[in-house]
Amino acid sequence: MPGPLRLTIWNEFIHERTNAAVEKIYPQGIHAVLATAMRQQLGDQIELRTATLDEPEHGLSAEVLATTDVLIWWGHAAHERVEDAVVERVRQRVLEGMGLVALHSAHNSKIFRTLMGTSCMLRWREAAERERLWIVDPSHPIVAGFREEYFELPHTEMYGEFFDIPRPDDIFLNSWFEGGEVFRSGCTWRRGKGKIVYFRPGHETFPIYHDANVQRVIANSIVWAAPTGSSYYGQGRNIAEPLSPIESEHAVDESLHRAK
Amino acid sequence: MPGPLRLTIWNEFIHERTNAAVEKIYPQGIHAVLATAMRQQLGDQIELRTATLDEPEHGLSAEVLATTDVLIWWGHAAHERVEDAVVERVRQRVLEGMGLVALHSAHNSKIFRTLMGTSCMLRWREAAERERLWIVDPSHPIVAGFREEYFELPHTEMYGEFFDIPRPDDIFLNSWFEGGEVFRSGCTWRRGKGKIVYFRPGHETFPIYHDANVQRVIANSIVWAAPTGSSYYGQGRNIAEPLSPIESEHAVDESLHRAK
Amino acid sequence: MPGPLRLTIWNEFIHERTNAAVEKIYPQGIHAVLATAMRQQLGDQIELRTATLDEPEHGLSAEVLATTDVLIWWGHAAHERVEDAVVERVRQRVLEGMGLVALHSAHNSKIFRTLMGTSCMLRWREAAERERLWIVDPSHPIVAGFREEYFELPHTEMYGEFFDIPRPDDIFLNSWFEGGEVFRSGCTWRRGKGKIVYFRPGHETFPIYHDANVQRVIANSIVWAAPTGSSYYGQGRNIAEPLSPIESEHAVDESLHRAK
Amino acid sequence: MPGPLRLTIWNEFIHERTNAAVEKIYPQGIHAVLATAMRQQLGDQIELRTATLDEPEHGLSAEVLATTDVLIWWGHAAHERVEDAVVERVRQRVLEGMGLVALHSAHNSKIFRTLMGTSCMLRWREAAERERLWIVDPSHPIVAGFREEYFELPHTEMYGEFFDIPRPDDIFLNSWFEGGEVFRSGCTWRRGKGKIVYFRPGHETFPIYHDANVQRVIANSIVWAAPTGSSYYGQGRNIAEPLSPIESEHAVDESLHRAK
Repeated sequence: MPGPLRLTIWNEFIHERTNAAVEKIYPQGIHAVLATAMRQQLGDQIELRTATLDEPEHGLSAEVLATTDVLIWWGHAAHERVEDAVVERVRQRVLEGMGLVALHSAHNSKIFRTLMGTSCMLRWREAAERERLWIVDPSHPIVAGFREEYFELPHTEMYGEFFDIPRPDDIFLNSWFEGGEVFRSGCTWRRGKGKIVYFRPGHETFPIYHDANVQRVIANSIVWAAPTGSSYYGQGRNIAEPLSPIESEHAVDESLHRAK
Repeated sequence: MPGPLRLTIWNEFIHERTNAAVEKIYPQGIHAVLATAMRQQLGDQIELRTATLDEPEHGLSAEVLATTDVLIWWGHAAHERVEDAVVERVRQRVLEGMGLVALHSAHNSKIFRTLMGTSCMLRWREAAERERLWIVDPSHPIVAGFREEYFELPHTEMYGEFFDIPRPDDIFLNSWFEGGEVFRSGCTWRRGKGKIVYFRPGHETFPIYHDANVQRVIANSIVWAAPTGSSYYGQGRNIAEPLSPIESEHAVDESLHRAK
Repeated sequence: MPGPLRLTIWNEFIHERTNAAVEKIYPQGIHAVLATAMRQQLGDQIELRTATLDEPEHGLSAEVLATTDVLIWWGHAAHERVEDAVVERVRQRVLEGMGLVALHSAHNSKIFRTLMGTSCMLRWREAAERERLWIVDPSHPIVAGFREEYFELPHTEMYGEFFDIPRPDDIFLNSWFEGGEVFRSGCTWRRGKGKIVYFRPGHETFPIYHDANVQRVIANSIVWAAPTGSSYYGQGRNIAEPLSPIESEHAVDESLHRAK
Repeated sequence: MPGPLRLTIWNEFIHERTNAAVEKIYPQGIHAVLATAMRQQLGDQIELRTATLDEPEHGLSAEVLATTDVLIWWGHAAHERVEDAVVERVRQRVLEGMGLVALHSAHNSKIFRTLMGTSCMLRWREAAERERLWIVDPSHPIVAGFREEYFELPHTEMYGEFFDIPRPDDIFLNSWFEGGEVFRSGCTWRRGKGKIVYFRPGHETFPIYHDANVQRVIANSIVWAAPTGSSYYGQGRNIAEPLSPIESEHAVDESLHRAK
């Protein structure tokens, strides 16, 4: 095995400094709670750093991204304040193989939406209601370690269907909400060579990221989204010389051998 | 059944006016050949118009799009000249349900790439080589009417893997090329409520769109991509009133009932 | 268009004759109610017949199947009484292109299980609880005509996850149940050239098949599952003569040119 | 991490004892070459044993299967001689989580066909032709370590489309054949909790399993197919007591609370 998986946890870090109720739950920020939890869950398997909106380049310089294997994204109030250039830089790194774990309100982040191509919008209701997350793909590595068919969160913000996402490659969790909705709460996609996970729980006014089951899903998502596979070819390649003989004597317009 | 399917065929219409070899094959433009072919294939099932790059708003005004059920896209030399505002308008109409059939070099168009989220790049070689298109999903409506396992094109531009696209919902054609490559030549995706088809054949220096099999696939694609299904919900919806009773007495931060 | 779609509705037809409560809801049998409903929904688009367990060959002779485009299957109490030879005959017809719409307890029928390869088992509870069916693929033809994000059934038998099925090609409905479960209630798969729909509602002790929304989904499923596409090649084919030249002079063991 | 992955390599072991050309390539049997190769590739990560057709219960007793994490299957001439009871036992273990790696002519084995539900048939030609295997999912763990877009085998038996399989969950390799065909050569499915890989190369008259790239794909397949995830629920479960309150006062027929 190579060295540890290099994890970067990104948090916009606004609610925790402007809303007393949120600060009480996450006094050092959501990223700090996630960092502690992932260190407990994954130990030596990971190297970890955090980044926030207010840092230069939102803490996501080219160098940081080049040395990130998996990026966790949490944002809610300030999606529009994330600079387009940084979003494009993150997107390129995902295409090259960096994993992306989008949490909760990150459904509406620029980076998630640009990778999906859809509106990524949904129903919601903030009524502190019960959520029951059903495992619908028991062989999926992201649900490793669960012994029951579901797990619960007692008080959550509801997200409901229709969730306007492209068809997921995998759906591993379907949520039931007390108030009457369902939601595809655990989904994956691949874009370029990068693996993307969306995991629904996480509203800032509830202590969701202190929950052991939620932490386990996030830890498993990180491991699953780490780069694997072969080389990435995301550029046009003019292969003038065929690999195998061609019999054609048809005229070809050489002027069209342009670069893509 | 409602009225006829409203088809708009978009062509950048450049090569046909600047390259004598292309003009010879498509004297009135690729869109004119496709228009004639689709009228023959689909008759009264469709109403048809064309649009080109040089028209105001590239011929794709809000009114045109609002009355288009399926849009065919052919572009190659001038992808960057298509205005971003028009691309975004087309994207919104796709999400609302308009079908999109992207042909050949449209893999690199702004509209296709923004809906996919990936680079959409590939290998290519212009060597007038043989292509054999194998049907790998015989139940797919887009291959309706084919009696053999494959069909052939004698002289084509090669496109080869790795083709940097999101995992297709459906793959109905896999191409074999004489020079040694393979390609997922017929693919579909859904974005929002819109159905998207990518169909590979179509290089401007070969008479591809005069081929009966190619015309049949395009005609079938149009019918398949036409709007069907239920209403589209692509906006955030705050559902303050639950559908079913909630027992929680947990405090909720009303300040967060913001619009998405 | 060719002639009308030839529909066969199969019902084991036991509960209606042995249970007074069921007989009251379906005095002529579930198949009779479905037949009337499908005639209303689809009119001249279909030709329709019914078949039941007690008929010779369960009403599914080779001739009947050969002239069936789509088969609806309802069974519950007597799955094991369906003869294996008939099951295999139905399976072959599905592979050749006949559509199959499996309703409710047909999840446990021999024909559905043999096409899936899995146990097809699930949670259940008969508590007359509310079911809300959410549309999660608004572009799917099977949900054509729905104007809301969901529809409801006031009293149903609950089916819950984990539902042990292969990953569906399409999931168009996810159910919410009052008692706390979720379920993938509308799914499709392809086997050979045949299209398969599973649609959950339908317990015999509730008047589910009198419901207009349920009828609409079944009618749309029939149209969707009708044979389309190209020829089916489900046999081994020894292609001794290559389509394109082969340069190899490597020795080949001719004794192995056996039929598959 | 738990103990080593327990691998069982099954080979029908007929051609190697009856055909001198095959014996020359695989004097101790295909399973012996695979065993050596997997020990080299995976070292301490695995514990390994082999099993063959002529052993009692084909070497696949309940005890062997209960202590197998991943089963490799190679068969060709004697599919019909594999006892149905053993096939069913293997199937149950796959549903419970055992990985299955089906090689080459195992497309036509009872165990593969029963898990797929289709004919699993294909075109073939034994002409010692060139095969080029293109990587079409560069992020897939099964292609980890490849640095090029493809790898080649100089002399192979051709398998061509249409390959009558259910839609794969993943397609990681598409083959090009010199003689004119393409083939989905690397595919995965999930059945129950078990992960299944089909990998095409491997004809007995060519030294395919001595090839380093082929060995790498098989080694990666084993690691990918190893059991992960949560508990498996493959039995019916009557959940008489709802998880959440139900308001219904509708009459329920208790006689129907039967076991599934």
